[in-house]
Amino acid sequence: MKTGTLPSPLRGIIPPLVTPLLDNDTLDVEGLERLIEHILAGGAHGLFVLGTTGEAPNLSYNLRHELVQRTCAQVAGRVPVLVGITDTAVSESLRLAQTAAEAGAAAVVSAPPYYYTPSQAELVTYYNYVADRVTLPLFLYNMPSHTKVSFEPATVKALSEHKNIVGLKDSSGNSVYFQMLCNIMRDQPDFSLLVGPEEITAEVVLMGGHGGVNGGANIFPHLYVELYEAAQNQNFEQISILQQQVLDISSRLYTVSKCGTSYLKGVKAALSALGICNDFLAEPHQRFQGAEKEKIKSHLAEIKSNMQRANSVSL
Amino acid sequence: MKTGTLPSPLRGIIPPLVTPLLDNDTLDVEGLERLIEHILAGGAHGLFVLGTTGEAPNLSYNLRHELVQRTCAQVAGRVPVLVGITDTAVSESLRLAQTAAEAGAAAVVSAPPYYYTPSQAELVTYYNYVADRVTLPLFLYNMPSHTKVSFEPATVKALSEHKNIVGLKDSSGNSVYFQMLCNIMRDQPDFSLLVGPEEITAEVVLMGGHGGVNGGANIFPHLYVELYEAAQNQNFEQISILQQQVLDISSRLYTVSKCGTSYLKGVKAALSALGICNDFLAEPHQRFQGAEKEKIKSHLAEIKSNMQRANSVSL
Amino acid sequence: MKTGTLPSPLRGIIPPLVTPLLDNDTLDVEGLERLIEHILAGGAHGLFVLGTTGEAPNLSYNLRHELVQRTCAQVAGRVPVLVGITDTAVSESLRLAQTAAEAGAAAVVSAPPYYYTPSQAELVTYYNYVADRVTLPLFLYNMPSHTKVSFEPATVKALSEHKNIVGLKDSSGNSVYFQMLCNIMRDQPDFSLLVGPEEITAEVVLMGGHGGVNGGANIFPHLYVELYEAAQNQNFEQISILQQQVLDISSRLYTVSKCGTSYLKGVKAALSALGICNDFLAEPHQRFQGAEKEKIKSHLAEIKSNMQRANSVSL
Amino acid sequence: MKTGTLPSPLRGIIPPLVTPLLDNDTLDVEGLERLIEHILAGGAHGLFVLGTTGEAPNLSYNLRHELVQRTCAQVAGRVPVLVGITDTAVSESLRLAQTAAEAGAAAVVSAPPYYYTPSQAELVTYYNYVADRVTLPLFLYNMPSHTKVSFEPATVKALSEHKNIVGLKDSSGNSVYFQMLCNIMRDQPDFSLLVGPEEITAEVVLMGGHGGVNGGANIFPHLYVELYEAAQNQNFEQISILQQQVLDISSRLYTVSKCGTSYLKGVKAALSALGICNDFLAEPHQRFQGAEKEKIKSHLAEIKSNMQRANSVSL
Repeated sequence: MKTGTLPSPLRGIIPPLVTPLLDNDTLDVEGLERLIEHILAGGAHGLFVLGTTGEAPNLSYNLRHELVQRTCAQVAGRVPVLVGITDTAVSESLRLAQTAAEAGAAAVVSAPPYYYTPSQAELVTYYNYVADRVTLPLFLYNMPSHTKVSFEPATVKALSEHKNIVGLKDSSGNSVYFQMLCNIMRDQPDFSLLVGPEEITAEVVLMGGHGGVNGGANIFPHLYVELYEAAQNQNFEQISILQQQVLDISSRLYTVSKCGTSYLKGVKAALSALGICNDFLAEPHQRFQGAEKEKIKSHLAEIKSNMQRANSVSL
Repeated sequence: MKTGTLPSPLRGIIPPLVTPLLDNDTLDVEGLERLIEHILAGGAHGLFVLGTTGEAPNLSYNLRHELVQRTCAQVAGRVPVLVGITDTAVSESLRLAQTAAEAGAAAVVSAPPYYYTPSQAELVTYYNYVADRVTLPLFLYNMPSHTKVSFEPATVKALSEHKNIVGLKDSSGNSVYFQMLCNIMRDQPDFSLLVGPEEITAEVVLMGGHGGVNGGANIFPHLYVELYEAAQNQNFEQISILQQQVLDISSRLYTVSKCGTSYLKGVKAALSALGICNDFLAEPHQRFQGAEKEKIKSHLAEIKSNMQRANSVSL
Repeated sequence: MKTGTLPSPLRGIIPPLVTPLLDNDTLDVEGLERLIEHILAGGAHGLFVLGTTGEAPNLSYNLRHELVQRTCAQVAGRVPVLVGITDTAVSESLRLAQTAAEAGAAAVVSAPPYYYTPSQAELVTYYNYVADRVTLPLFLYNMPSHTKVSFEPATVKALSEHKNIVGLKDSSGNSVYFQMLCNIMRDQPDFSLLVGPEEITAEVVLMGGHGGVNGGANIFPHLYVELYEAAQNQNFEQISILQQQVLDISSRLYTVSKCGTSYLKGVKAALSALGICNDFLAEPHQRFQGAEKEKIKSHLAEIKSNMQRANSVSL
Repeated sequence: MKTGTLPSPLRGIIPPLVTPLLDNDTLDVEGLERLIEHILAGGAHGLFVLGTTGEAPNLSYNLRHELVQRTCAQVAGRVPVLVGITDTAVSESLRLAQTAAEAGAAAVVSAPPYYYTPSQAELVTYYNYVADRVTLPLFLYNMPSHTKVSFEPATVKALSEHKNIVGLKDSSGNSVYFQMLCNIMRDQPDFSLLVGPEEITAEVVLMGGHGGVNGGANIFPHLYVELYEAAQNQNFEQISILQQQVLDISSRLYTVSKCGTSYLKGVKAALSALGICNDFLAEPHQRFQGAEKEKIKSHLAEIKSNMQRANSVSL
């Protein structure tokens, strides 16, 4: 078993892997392998399975454990694999963390238990409890739109004192919050601060953040890696060209439907159109069909043609 | 195996059972037995396990299945047992429903998958999918504060056409919504419409609703049964006396702390003070300690003494 | 000048008057007179001008003052007139209160300043400040969906100690909250507790509340008065017949559009269809046109025919 | 009368002026003059009166008009003055816009009417109505936390076709939203896109945004101007030093209390401690007293000493 080493801090683009499915209980194993190879070929700096984009909460437990094992085996230490262990039941989180450790993952990632709304004090107790019981490094996962609670900066600071808690992924989209986090953590430069929404990865990296967990990198991994590198290098000409492509992907693939999971359905539909994996979504979500599916296909074609034009100009 | 027959519609007080725990993974088996006997002795018309009050989402799967089996065995058909199968993963919901059926439960209860926010159309698809696959009658469970979505009345109407979907429990506290539900369902008088918050069970029953799934009935089952019967009988003198006691319980036991789960902690602390079961709460919640625990004890003593005084006056 | 005497507590149906407009700055004076006479003929126990239904915040100050004067003159002491003085600027609230007093109104009504979100302590300070400076009795107005803050029961209790603060209108629709209010105020039976949503007026009155500030009473004042009286008299047969009519009005006139102000537009469209007043809405709202307007007309015809059938049966 | 010319697009730091008050109805005229001179001495590129920081909704109309006239007279064309005309009553907005034009302001700024929640279609109608009737250029003001509605990017695009609508100030703090705005407006480079929260002005300017409407610039105008210029010049060493100071101000002056208006009270308390103007807040807000006031003073002293140290190092 090969483990991807975890840099300190973890930097770069760590795509949140879509979970390719044949039905509610069956992985699309070949699609999963193709997707992983597609993303690694694009230069991603890590892989995050069982996140929000991975539909983790909607997958059965057997399937979650199988996915962790297959992903780690396929990646085989080429990049660090991060495993989402978010669960409302702490015992199930710990079981997943153990599977992750045994499979060779590099770290685990946990959003707050999300049915009730815990207090900040309960978050501190909870994460210390979890961090005491997992053998892998732990990332906090801030996702207030889905969990109904946000880690206050002082809570993050308190939790960062636990040696197993090594970073935070913020999917709030709230850059004021992210800047306040950067400020409170500025004396701990090894604590990794990553951002979810791909639309703000460039600015976050320019301001000193460490990278992005960007869903679009399932589709176009190289684009997001290039944008990250352009931001790292303060190459504003490149940023301008690439950011425009990233925003076009957001505006054309993620808002085809008005429903709250339009982003998720758009990513899976695009991956299916590219022949990478199945577009089935676990209940209660339904994949795009008919007009919405066609829209994704035609928008995808336009995006690809724009990307080729921009690249030939920039060469 | 004896199954409690499910009346059509189900009426009365169906307490949402607290889950007595020794630790995160271990049932307080003796406490569970005492609690069930205490509630049945109070005249409850049914029992609902694995609801919000039961901390269902925070319990490991093994424990959830064990709880269903033990409860059904203990109740032994004396009243119908309703089993919560709410889960973000539909496969885990269906496994729990099968355990419920095998153990002799009378019905299952399901709130919407609660990490993402499904659309109304997805709710219709989802519940038809579930209702097609369970052998027991199914109650919808409306809990928007925790699931971030409410069943629109038209969605309930559409779902009520499935022969397995027999009722709805509404914990929104929004009586305008409940009245609109009553109105849209008025041509299906067998569809059971129950309400969660005990503070409004009396008025809901006066207006034609079928009963209450009242957390306080873990502590004082007889009080809530009496109030239900007073409302059924339009005995306003009795309602006035009993409603005051119910509201005092709410104001004195459920708001001792400012945290969102103060209600849950208050009920468990009171049951522990009464010697009925352990007050341990599954992670991430922490039971009341110190001053808060003492406050529950002294408020409980006052409530009991007020209840005795009121009862002696009313006799 | 004749002032309508204010009963203590105020009881019954107090319709929140729609403001008939010709354009953004001009009252539909004849429509206003017809509307007031229509409502008084229906037996209403009071009139509330410049509330949410009255579009108060969207009216210019001159128009608000003119409306108060004209309404009080037209009512001429036949019933108490309550005047909404809600404003983000306290000085403007006080100016309106003075106009109300001079015009012969019986009380003023104030929701919290609604741009920023005040704390409970600031609500206490604010309402004591206002109550010290108005000569008329003051009702608190709880409208959290629009003001982003709710009066906590303890805040209401604290404010009720001011001799000028005589009641509260709750438009939250949250009956748990309303019951908790009733409980905390039970030793002050003269403090008037009224409810906004007409769908719950019956149950609130059955449980001891004092009445309803019901928007539908602009259209069918007699229906809401009858329902109130049926609840007062615990006449459940009547309640059942009338409540069904009230709910049909809600479901057929208030949700014709998906927009947040569909209720407001529905009431004005219905009043216009009945020939009572103009349906113009102040900016930024736009009245129903075309298909939506026709829908209101045909639903209104059905409602009226159902009401006639029900009445002939009940006679 | 001298009018500050409005650049196209407007760029830089445009402080949202605090409104110095002696009491609810009286301007602190001398404080206002000192504050304006203090801000202009710091190099601000414009001034914005009657915004959220200016407590506009809580001021009486007479006072709002007086403030506009005094500010324009004091500034005397040295920088463009932007005047907030946000109001729930469109007629009052238009009256303020006329006063602004007559006083020599350069533009008006309008957030959506904020009691009801308008639909996107109603926002389009409303802003076209207003823009047709004002003589000064109009900025949209996005403030969803206070107005309960956000301008969707497509709404902004549609409104930008009106020749009088020249820019937008976004106070959402949501950088994903801001990037989507930048993207949809990229073919209209003269449309000014400004950001409210000072914590993200640097990154917004790095990514092509035009500047910040930063409340802290009431206290330390030069700091925010320097940070803007550092971002404009892509001087990352400077950005790092100045951003840290800006974040320290946020974390030490704006969160002294838990209340929602802690920021507002902190800014006024700091200005009072610096001897610039009175710290009175209009009802319903109460200025900091006692421990909170002392905390502001001591934090302010530390911030100033840190700024001096950083500046001497950077020289």
